[in-house]
Amino acid sequence: MAIRVMHFGLGPIGCAVARQVANRRDFKIVGGIDVDPAKVGQDVGDVIGLERKVRAKVAADAAAALETLKPDIVVLCTQSSLSRVLPQIETILAAKVPIVSTTEELAYPTSVNRKWARRIDALAQEAGVAVLGTGVNPGFVMDALPITLTGVCERVDALEIDRIQDARTRRLPFQLKIGAGLTPEQFLEKVESGSVRHVGLAESISMIADAMGWKLEYITDDIAPKIASKPVSSEFLTVKRGQVCGIIQDGIGYISGQPLIKLHMEAYLGAPESYDAVRVTGSPNLSMKIVGGVAGDVATASIVVNSIPKVLVAMPGLRTMRDLPIPSYFGGKLLSG
Amino acid sequence: MAIRVMHFGLGPIGCAVARQVANRRDFKIVGGIDVDPAKVGQDVGDVIGLERKVRAKVAADAAAALETLKPDIVVLCTQSSLSRVLPQIETILAAKVPIVSTTEELAYPTSVNRKWARRIDALAQEAGVAVLGTGVNPGFVMDALPITLTGVCERVDALEIDRIQDARTRRLPFQLKIGAGLTPEQFLEKVESGSVRHVGLAESISMIADAMGWKLEYITDDIAPKIASKPVSSEFLTVKRGQVCGIIQDGIGYISGQPLIKLHMEAYLGAPESYDAVRVTGSPNLSMKIVGGVAGDVATASIVVNSIPKVLVAMPGLRTMRDLPIPSYFGGKLLSG
Repeated sequence: MAIRVMHFGLGPIGCAVARQVANRRDFKIVGGIDVDPAKVGQDVGDVIGLERKVRAKVAADAAAALETLKPDIVVLCTQSSLSRVLPQIETILAAKVPIVSTTEELAYPTSVNRKWARRIDALAQEAGVAVLGTGVNPGFVMDALPITLTGVCERVDALEIDRIQDARTRRLPFQLKIGAGLTPEQFLEKVESGSVRHVGLAESISMIADAMGWKLEYITDDIAPKIASKPVSSEFLTVKRGQVCGIIQDGIGYISGQPLIKLHMEAYLGAPESYDAVRVTGSPNLSMKIVGGVAGDVATASIVVNSIPKVLVAMPGLRTMRDLPIPSYFGGKLLSG
Repeated sequence: MAIRVMHFGLGPIGCAVARQVANRRDFKIVGGIDVDPAKVGQDVGDVIGLERKVRAKVAADAAAALETLKPDIVVLCTQSSLSRVLPQIETILAAKVPIVSTTEELAYPTSVNRKWARRIDALAQEAGVAVLGTGVNPGFVMDALPITLTGVCERVDALEIDRIQDARTRRLPFQLKIGAGLTPEQFLEKVESGSVRHVGLAESISMIADAMGWKLEYITDDIAPKIASKPVSSEFLTVKRGQVCGIIQDGIGYISGQPLIKLHMEAYLGAPESYDAVRVTGSPNLSMKIVGGVAGDVATASIVVNSIPKVLVAMPGLRTMRDLPIPSYFGGKLLSG
């Protein structure tokens, strides 16, 4: 029996997830939900750029679609903010359907978001289903994977995690999100307004701290522009010398006054090497590197799809990557078509 | 409330686990079991090389000790072979006590061992407790960690995993186990008799194949001597040119006639670089390296101890690293003493 999936939110990430679901065994797309009038009423296959119809439409009214289609799971890819997706989650849980979401703030409850997380946990328990927030980051490279490495440690003193990405090969919205092509002044304005920012460092730091049994005092999350020292271009845009080519963001978790969890991200056009790295200081020390890094969009879509079978059998409530079984590829083979 | 731990088997690994249990918060050693008459009757602290007594004795009779001491968990570190530890496991499960074991063949049921695994699973379910086999390898670097990486893949075509260790810094029994100092002829005799061999490649390959949803056709497991091209020595022994300085072992899992899971181990005195590496071929490709590798004994002892709280709340039955929550350090801090 195929797992019947409804896709709530068909932006770039929602579409990437839906394409995997369409092309993998054991899944069936039963419907889509989107606010965009241009998408509503279309076949999901057309909206996500498949070569074929999937015989499932995009609707605007989530509650009605849930009632009619009775999916086994909803993939929720709409917004980053927990308070803003809360009404959507309430609608889905009212239909007693489990959720996998790329909402960054759902990846782990921070102290700021704890009240929303508690409410979602209570609603999910009432509905008897599990809710999971996941993705490549937050959800994997800067939290679940480093935590996994500490499983072989008898003592952990500190963690440092780097994610360095050459953004030249990423999609245009990502290049814009990191501020590429802006002047430094424009960049700072966008940081102030919150439109240039990676969401998730506080979530990753909180997940690590809880896993280590450390009581966090506070978290800092600082953003700086990466300034191009020479012209650099991607398929989509060109950045002049002195303009912003991307973002540098540092999240630090302090415990007993010490910066024990350090997350460092650089994403800019022209980074000489993409990689993910984890250094655990403790016994033993561990130094891990993923050469080339873990590609953002395909990895996020993959971990969402791979998590679906685990969420279907998880304990009801708000779950995190900390309490699910180890991540793993699911599905065996792609359909030949 | 401290977790009350009984240590069944006080060889080098059992002692390493017990030392961590003695030195970490939230655990209490309540007893030891060993066949060695020189250890029976001693305080566990003396046997494991602590500077202090732990006020718990080593006993020879497991059933009686379990009955009297009622531990929360037994750490079983006796033998590699599932059929040989089966009577010990039966004794422990008769007392309805959960188990974490370093028995390599318990790390994952291979087709050869399936009947023993089924029996243990049935007994554990009857007892209402969980049984886990774990360690650094099998249990982590060549199975659980590579599987975790595939969580960000939309397709997996093949996995290659390397574990290269300079054995100069390892304990003497390990150096002897890999055949260091033997002539090539002696080495081959010991391979034939089964005394020179890493146990666990078939277990790791089976775990990966099941996680990927691949049906294994067969597994090969081949051992070759590493011959010293120049003299090399450790703290304990010297190997002449032309003698064996260690072991090369290759495990391969074939699916549809293809070698899709390749595990390659080298452990020898004088390896120029120790590391663990995973390459996933698929979408996306992934290439991970742990520089310096994951140290064997401390990592095995650590993952055993870190797994205890997870096993205590796991579903009854024979569990594996595939179905437990992600590995993580447990315990917060070492006691200052």
